[in-house]
Amino acid sequence: MTFDAPVKDMIFNIQHLAGWSEVTSLPAYDGLELEDAAAALTELARFTVEEIAPLNAPGDQSGARLENGRVILPDGFTEAYGKFVEMGWQSLPHPEDFGGQGLPRAVGAAATEMLNAANMSFALCPLLTDGAVEALLTAGSEETKAIYLENLVSGKWTGTMNLTEPQAGSDLALLRSRAERQDDGSYAITGTKIFITYGEHDMAENTIHLVLARTPDAPAGVKGISLFLVPKYMVSSDGTPGTRNAVNCASIEHKLGITASPTAVLNFEGATGFLIGEENSGLRYMFEMMNSARYAVGLQGVAIAERAYQQAVSFARERIQSSPVDGSSREAVAIINHPDVRRMLMRMRAVTEGGRAMAAFTAGWQDLAKHSASSDDRAAATAISEFLTPLVKGFCTEMGVVVASTGVQVHGGMGFIEETGAAQHYRDARILPIYEGTTAIQANDLVGRKTLRDGGETALRLAGMIAQTETDLAQGSAEAKSVGARLSDARQAFESVVRHMAATGKEDPKAAFGAGVPYLMLAGNLVAGWQLARSLMAAETALQAGEDPAFMQAKIATARFYADHILIDVGAQADRILKGSDSLLAAVL
Amino acid sequence: MTFDAPVKDMIFNIQHLAGWSEVTSLPAYDGLELEDAAAALTELARFTVEEIAPLNAPGDQSGARLENGRVILPDGFTEAYGKFVEMGWQSLPHPEDFGGQGLPRAVGAAATEMLNAANMSFALCPLLTDGAVEALLTAGSEETKAIYLENLVSGKWTGTMNLTEPQAGSDLALLRSRAERQDDGSYAITGTKIFITYGEHDMAENTIHLVLARTPDAPAGVKGISLFLVPKYMVSSDGTPGTRNAVNCASIEHKLGITASPTAVLNFEGATGFLIGEENSGLRYMFEMMNSARYAVGLQGVAIAERAYQQAVSFARERIQSSPVDGSSREAVAIINHPDVRRMLMRMRAVTEGGRAMAAFTAGWQDLAKHSASSDDRAAATAISEFLTPLVKGFCTEMGVVVASTGVQVHGGMGFIEETGAAQHYRDARILPIYEGTTAIQANDLVGRKTLRDGGETALRLAGMIAQTETDLAQGSAEAKSVGARLSDARQAFESVVRHMAATGKEDPKAAFGAGVPYLMLAGNLVAGWQLARSLMAAETALQAGEDPAFMQAKIATARFYADHILIDVGAQADRILKGSDSLLAAVL
Repeated sequence: MTFDAPVKDMIFNIQHLAGWSEVTSLPAYDGLELEDAAAALTELARFTVEEIAPLNAPGDQSGARLENGRVILPDGFTEAYGKFVEMGWQSLPHPEDFGGQGLPRAVGAAATEMLNAANMSFALCPLLTDGAVEALLTAGSEETKAIYLENLVSGKWTGTMNLTEPQAGSDLALLRSRAERQDDGSYAITGTKIFITYGEHDMAENTIHLVLARTPDAPAGVKGISLFLVPKYMVSSDGTPGTRNAVNCASIEHKLGITASPTAVLNFEGATGFLIGEENSGLRYMFEMMNSARYAVGLQGVAIAERAYQQAVSFARERIQSSPVDGSSREAVAIINHPDVRRMLMRMRAVTEGGRAMAAFTAGWQDLAKHSASSDDRAAATAISEFLTPLVKGFCTEMGVVVASTGVQVHGGMGFIEETGAAQHYRDARILPIYEGTTAIQANDLVGRKTLRDGGETALRLAGMIAQTETDLAQGSAEAKSVGARLSDARQAFESVVRHMAATGKEDPKAAFGAGVPYLMLAGNLVAGWQLARSLMAAETALQAGEDPAFMQAKIATARFYADHILIDVGAQADRILKGSDSLLAAVL
Repeated sequence: MTFDAPVKDMIFNIQHLAGWSEVTSLPAYDGLELEDAAAALTELARFTVEEIAPLNAPGDQSGARLENGRVILPDGFTEAYGKFVEMGWQSLPHPEDFGGQGLPRAVGAAATEMLNAANMSFALCPLLTDGAVEALLTAGSEETKAIYLENLVSGKWTGTMNLTEPQAGSDLALLRSRAERQDDGSYAITGTKIFITYGEHDMAENTIHLVLARTPDAPAGVKGISLFLVPKYMVSSDGTPGTRNAVNCASIEHKLGITASPTAVLNFEGATGFLIGEENSGLRYMFEMMNSARYAVGLQGVAIAERAYQQAVSFARERIQSSPVDGSSREAVAIINHPDVRRMLMRMRAVTEGGRAMAAFTAGWQDLAKHSASSDDRAAATAISEFLTPLVKGFCTEMGVVVASTGVQVHGGMGFIEETGAAQHYRDARILPIYEGTTAIQANDLVGRKTLRDGGETALRLAGMIAQTETDLAQGSAEAKSVGARLSDARQAFESVVRHMAATGKEDPKAAFGAGVPYLMLAGNLVAGWQLARSLMAAETALQAGEDPAFMQAKIATARFYADHILIDVGAQADRILKGSDSLLAAVL
């Protein structure tokens, strides 16, 4: 199965959805041209297609193994990682101060997506390193940054996130790992961390673990958690890896999917750690890191959907089976001609492109949140981008699972045979709505921090922006008007839900949080549909200018399909929230 | 993970949904008491829980293997199968004339479900034997029946269905296997069949293959297909297995799930076969067998959902994580107390019980179709039961995949670790919407044969029966009225779709067949919700009589939840069909 990175769609989104002109008028991106971004993505696409994608199926088959405390990665991973670092891909979205290329978030998002579509197990390692970079940029001291950042930004060293313990998964209040202050200012870290992605491997010369633990005098619960940096190899005064730290890999998990990525149990046995930021503020820093990682996991949802779609559409073009339903021929035809196969493929494609569009739109707000000149502008953009983050994570990963499942279905019986490859996507995708915070955890964030806290203001601000798009659509083509009508229905249903949540959520938290995932999925559906509606208008304009007609026509068709087949669910999604809480609270289990 | 067969719910359904009084007033079931059926199911439940369920996870881990043309099944399978036969479970639903116990279909359905919930890989073998029995009862000559049926009914010999070839999956018109008439009246069968479940194994002393093939002078396409019986071992004149026939297992597949069941590639190399029924009528007989097998696969969907639900609810009771969202305590509690976990579990449960209820209802009509005294009554019942078959197959299997996926989600990170067991259900479930006809094939059947052919008459007859239930609900409790209102909305949406299909389907087959799966899922949702509404009324009556309050209250709560959270989707499902065909037909792929 070959893979083809969807660079054209990515650049379309960067140009039309991610606020390219606003973003590139920020001082941070002064002088950047779309062509520069496009050139970088095109070169990365070539690399992922030629060097990374071919390792995906063999990597799944052999898996990562643990031998005498060392992780053996599948053949080719270490060499490919070396090239990845050498070509500078890790540094693409990171600040120039630390050797990064400083490209906008939307460009970084496209890079993350294509690397994950090529090989999710491989891409997890850079993804975790990105998170570590974010955390150190947020809370690291100047000294810490000087020692670690450049090597993380380059990918010469890799990063991990150590949150989970056997008794503490979604609930970090329960974590027990201890950090005891030493005379030299460092801390001795002791405890067991589980589910540590790339917690042990030899692809890079050092691994920088970021670890949550409690100091002896810390308050109970989440307010007593501190963040520590624990290098696998202590860094010598010349900046190179020296002696091994007291952190060891006890085992790696036997998983349903992403089998080529080692998921480690790490034992910290008085390992030397360095406090990041202030004591007892670890969760706050970790949230910075998690916001970046959650958004990136949303991109993984888009990525696995894209890969599953490509595999399914390619099978459907080749598999000959049954004559056309309209009797136009007696001969069996390629199954891509059969209406239900087209329906399945269009659902896969529409959801994939919708998720990608939403992620690109969110990336634009992330840049405005970080780099706008005025603090008011930054605050306003932060509210939007933080509202969108759980949508990208929750909606795109849940849909990734559904799309991968549909991908198996398109293959019929062949999809159930492992050699075909469709099953790997179905297995790989299943982790996405779980790690970096389950969909319910995303929904709690959306309901609590992002909706109830401001009384629904940010949500309704987004609804206002959607209403503006409806006005534009109403002045457009017949297709634009039709999509606009669906969007309007959906936006109004969303507003009802937001008002209901704001009015009743604080008094009736069980009902509000019980409706959290449906609310997240509704909002994700709406925002994805909105961005595809914007895409439709941009594609119509481009088409009139004679730009790439085949691509633009497909874009318009996909946006229409999304509106009629997926956005149309928003009404029922809202009804379930508005009318379903009594029967949920009366559940007998 | 322990398993507990849901016998109570099954008996409730047999009593209240499957027309028990009508069925037992048929001469075929004269004198049968509910207690007899309940006693048989309770005993089988014990057997599945104690002997079959414990083999499920180890069987998945070791898988079936092929060594020198022989299939090695996982440890314990052969012994368990021996006990299964010895105790007479295979014979439960089959006619007394051939040694069966002659129990009604709804009882047989409950037996099939619990065996599959215990161990789907194991249960596939008896399931295929049931299909072979159906085919021989339908089309076998008296001689054939005399030689083969008793040993199949007892399970001493097992059966297989040989349809698929590499180039002929959903499209049987493309099949190429040849059958050449021999002087002694037998046929020499030559060809390669793939995806043959339990095509090779040593659990039973003989395997009876039912094989589709073409005679040399047969017309092209599906009208030239004949059905042959090909024993693995030729049956000697004393009725015992003799010399080996020329059918060999070339390989078995490496599958995503049901790994313990061998899925064989069979080479027929001039194997001796015996014609079943008449030449060129094979597809008709195979449809009889497939109808039975399709219905049984629908039960597998219910079964895997039940198993996934039990595993998830048991984990949710034990896993302690996070304090209550309403702030009622600072202590972490079992996650079953969290609203979103309750929502997930209730969705799993509601869909599982809804599917089981629909299957039980369908079983009642199957009996009336077969055993009613007048041919008019038989024809009327046949129309209903045949309308319902694709719903049971399509809806219950698609929902089985969704429920198993939600089951992984309830477990969080632990769900992704193979040792937990939730992942096996997710892998196993994925075959169900594919084999015995994909969901699209079921939908084609529903649209073409079951709706367009009679102009929607049967569908609207069912709608009339639903309207009668609405009238009953309107006279009931507040809960009954609320469920009745949702049912009424859903039934009306269904009627709109049926009328639309009947009016436009023949002129616009691409649109009609493109809407087939949405129509099937809508109809399945409606019928499942309808049967749960009937359950609610029966449970309310039982509750007033003081019968089993805990069970009845849970039943009522589940029916309410289904109506508010799942049945409520029917409106959007209908909109998608009524408004979505233009954008589907305009798809650019």
